[in-house]
Amino acid sequence: MGKEFFMKAALKEAKKAYNKGEVPVGAVIVKDNEIISKGHNLKESKNNTIKHAEIIAIEKASKAMNSWRLEDCDIYITMEPCPMCMGAIINSRIRKIYYGVSDQKSGACGSVIDLTEYKFNHIPKYEKNILKNECREILQQFFKGLRIKNKKE
Amino acid sequence: MGKEFFMKAALKEAKKAYNKGEVPVGAVIVKDNEIISKGHNLKESKNNTIKHAEIIAIEKASKAMNSWRLEDCDIYITMEPCPMCMGAIINSRIRKIYYGVSDQKSGACGSVIDLTEYKFNHIPKYEKNILKNECREILQQFFKGLRIKNKKE
Repeated sequence: MGKEFFMKAALKEAKKAYNKGEVPVGAVIVKDNEIISKGHNLKESKNNTIKHAEIIAIEKASKAMNSWRLEDCDIYITMEPCPMCMGAIINSRIRKIYYGVSDQKSGACGSVIDLTEYKFNHIPKYEKNILKNECREILQQFFKGLRIKNKKE
Repeated sequence: MGKEFFMKAALKEAKKAYNKGEVPVGAVIVKDNEIISKGHNLKESKNNTIKHAEIIAIEKASKAMNSWRLEDCDIYITMEPCPMCMGAIINSRIRKIYYGVSDQKSGACGSVIDLTEYKFNHIPKYEKNILKNECREILQQFFKGLRIKNKKE
């Protein structure tokens, strides 16, 4: 299975967030070519700023692996991670990050800052622009809907 | 109540982590001069890299406030936050960070990096070196004990 296959699975997760009225971001964690966990943004539903897609996926992967060390795992995320999620990826020693669309407002993997350029105890690799258009489109659709809703109110 | 009063409460939390064999870091969140949540590091006990003291305290505070927005809240932490916790503090819009001892290995509030210098949507203020010696001492004691234990094994 290739990068696009796993990003499609992350996009399915983003769609779940979309359907719940959440900013549509999804993530999956892959080990040995298999998805071991999935997550989608649940910040508003849970009223909890920690509940980003990546954090949920990391917590589930740790449970599945019975370890906080996710050394041979890769994460596929529809949007560039924020500092919190990037920090969680560093802490959990995830090997490589694949993401779809960049985030000019909060991205900590190349946009606002690149945390892989600093000497933390683990430095993940990363590759961006995987299914970039699809990952951007679902976000644009969400924010367009939000603007229309706000105008009506 | 002053800064030292609240840092002492965070130190009590760090002591709980110490007694569980965890790296002794503690945190409390304060609103209107009252502690609304507490947390101590539970990474190893929970086998979960997300369970740093700050994250636990933020999740509890969000529950207590019934909101992910912690705008009028301050956080007291015995050790400088890592990028994950610093990101969570930014995301939750905590007003000010008070911390005890710096972390040259993972500190994202002045040591390895200072995330308050970047244009994220919220920039918390911070003040360091609150009860620095006490905060450092409990960490040194922990790591000394670990070295003796490792030598014996």
